[in-house]
Amino acid sequence: MITVAVDAMGGDNAPSEIVAGAVAAVTKKSEIQVLLVGKEEVVRSELKKHSYRPEQIEVVHASEVIDTEEPPVNAIRRKKDSSIVVGMNLVKQNKADAFVSAGSSGAILVGGQVIVGRIKGVERPPLAPLIPTEKGVSLLIDCGANVDARPSHLVQFARMGSIYMEHVVGIKNPRVAIVNIGAEEEKGNALVKETFPLLKACTDINFIGSIEAREIPHGGADVIVSEAFVGNVILKLYEGVGATLIHMIKAGMMNGGLKTKLGALLVKPALKETLKSFDASEYGGAPLLGLNGLVVKTHGNSKATEVCNSIIQCVTFKEQDINGKIRESLLKEKNTGENA
Amino acid sequence: MITVAVDAMGGDNAPSEIVAGAVAAVTKKSEIQVLLVGKEEVVRSELKKHSYRPEQIEVVHASEVIDTEEPPVNAIRRKKDSSIVVGMNLVKQNKADAFVSAGSSGAILVGGQVIVGRIKGVERPPLAPLIPTEKGVSLLIDCGANVDARPSHLVQFARMGSIYMEHVVGIKNPRVAIVNIGAEEEKGNALVKETFPLLKACTDINFIGSIEAREIPHGGADVIVSEAFVGNVILKLYEGVGATLIHMIKAGMMNGGLKTKLGALLVKPALKETLKSFDASEYGGAPLLGLNGLVVKTHGNSKATEVCNSIIQCVTFKEQDINGKIRESLLKEKNTGENA
Repeated sequence: MITVAVDAMGGDNAPSEIVAGAVAAVTKKSEIQVLLVGKEEVVRSELKKHSYRPEQIEVVHASEVIDTEEPPVNAIRRKKDSSIVVGMNLVKQNKADAFVSAGSSGAILVGGQVIVGRIKGVERPPLAPLIPTEKGVSLLIDCGANVDARPSHLVQFARMGSIYMEHVVGIKNPRVAIVNIGAEEEKGNALVKETFPLLKACTDINFIGSIEAREIPHGGADVIVSEAFVGNVILKLYEGVGATLIHMIKAGMMNGGLKTKLGALLVKPALKETLKSFDASEYGGAPLLGLNGLVVKTHGNSKATEVCNSIIQCVTFKEQDINGKIRESLLKEKNTGENA
Repeated sequence: MITVAVDAMGGDNAPSEIVAGAVAAVTKKSEIQVLLVGKEEVVRSELKKHSYRPEQIEVVHASEVIDTEEPPVNAIRRKKDSSIVVGMNLVKQNKADAFVSAGSSGAILVGGQVIVGRIKGVERPPLAPLIPTEKGVSLLIDCGANVDARPSHLVQFARMGSIYMEHVVGIKNPRVAIVNIGAEEEKGNALVKETFPLLKACTDINFIGSIEAREIPHGGADVIVSEAFVGNVILKLYEGVGATLIHMIKAGMMNGGLKTKLGALLVKPALKETLKSFDASEYGGAPLLGLNGLVVKTHGNSKATEVCNSIIQCVTFKEQDINGKIRESLLKEKNTGENA
């Protein structure tokens, strides 16, 4: 059995899509138990619309909700009975293995560190979403809110990301690369130049060197290591360029003549399929790695499918003992450091 | 009359497309004179394929070519008779108003600073390409090779970019924004936090605050200010996501059934039009701003159209006396600084 606490109040489509996603997850996997955290009355009335095995879903009352606009540190400190704080406390108290939320990114990042807490030795827990590529998916690590990282942070990101891609996503010996503005080793800003040799010296990852942003959508690496400011820019530009291009293509077809409109009708299913495969929301949530437990952030506009995928992702995470593997990797790092 | 030196040997399609672009430019604008810099024999034999008014095109011999793989500083120092060094010297000696090249970015950036030289007071000359958006184009400044900028650099980028967008591209009172990971003023890395109030205090630009990468393709600002590492990532990811998505859409249509294939045939012209409007190479070259003269870097894979557009761009640049306006703006900045 794996117990996943789910923030029933977080995101644009809460509670209906969140509850629907939770029901879908427990229906798909009998080994999942979901604790739906939120305003009991609201959640229960939503649950009535679905049928499921009652022992698989429990409601945990939380009277408050953290808005996305609230300053995260304050929100976590003050709203002790919010769905995010209550849900994270369930993980901390070992009443849940994982917490999934589509709520305020900032609050989730702060709560993860402050409430759930870091694995001993982890300097900074990165937020690591999967992004679509021509070849499948890549892990973009770090897209969190803590910017201006140090080289040692990036090295830990590379190690944790590599473990995640190998054991959760199932990519053998994942290629790890650092985001850079040229392929040559001497290129880069101060941070990248300092980090490059450290990554090269890691014997437990498959470091392939620098990756230029152009190569990311082509699937040039499986684990894309980056400081959070740059990671954030990449993630958001990915969405932005994709959305704009799709919007323009659709508009271009619709504003065309009769021939074009007929053509648009005929290509629609194929086009939809392609666009779906390039839609980040299809790939479940982004784990906040390096915590004593698992916290998964899903898109703010998540629908039931993504919520369901994010919950199921937690099963693999626990089955594969990702945190055990991270601890082991940090221990090795420590020993190597002492021997060096 | 305006005289533009053009690197006949630079880029993937040199010399044929470069020469064709030069001929197109002088044919369009009778006030342009082009100095084609490169191996005389090669350039002359290429010129024979075209007809043009001979007084508008002159060949300036340069026996060497700088490869894109060569370390730029060394290349500029050693290859004194390369097309890039010879062309830039023409600008330095006032024999040409501008220099256009599709050759090695690194060599162009280094040569611009070392040979052509900076306008007095300019701390760092930024490379500022135009990028396509839903609403038209935006100027992305800086995408050069000098990373880890200081706040004062970014402020000058904002000023120079604003002048360029207003007087060359023709956008009145252009909206200037700084790339950030959130819209709130307190967000950002150390550099952005330090730069934000300085930009806010500039009375000569229309500073609208932070821009998240997601909003760039939507046309959220006219001048996108960024440190060169981040600017480079944005520029290259723009190309990468666009190219990948287009490739996937085409493949999806071609691998579909008969219906889809027929539809693809019908939407092809509209699709082509849309993709063209989102193709960075349609927007001429990227100026290296803040130099005593003008240096324009065009894409390495530039064809005649882009070369022609880049040459014509130089006319507006000179007519509008952009460098005079930059000098004036720096003077104001200096005075404000002294009064503060």
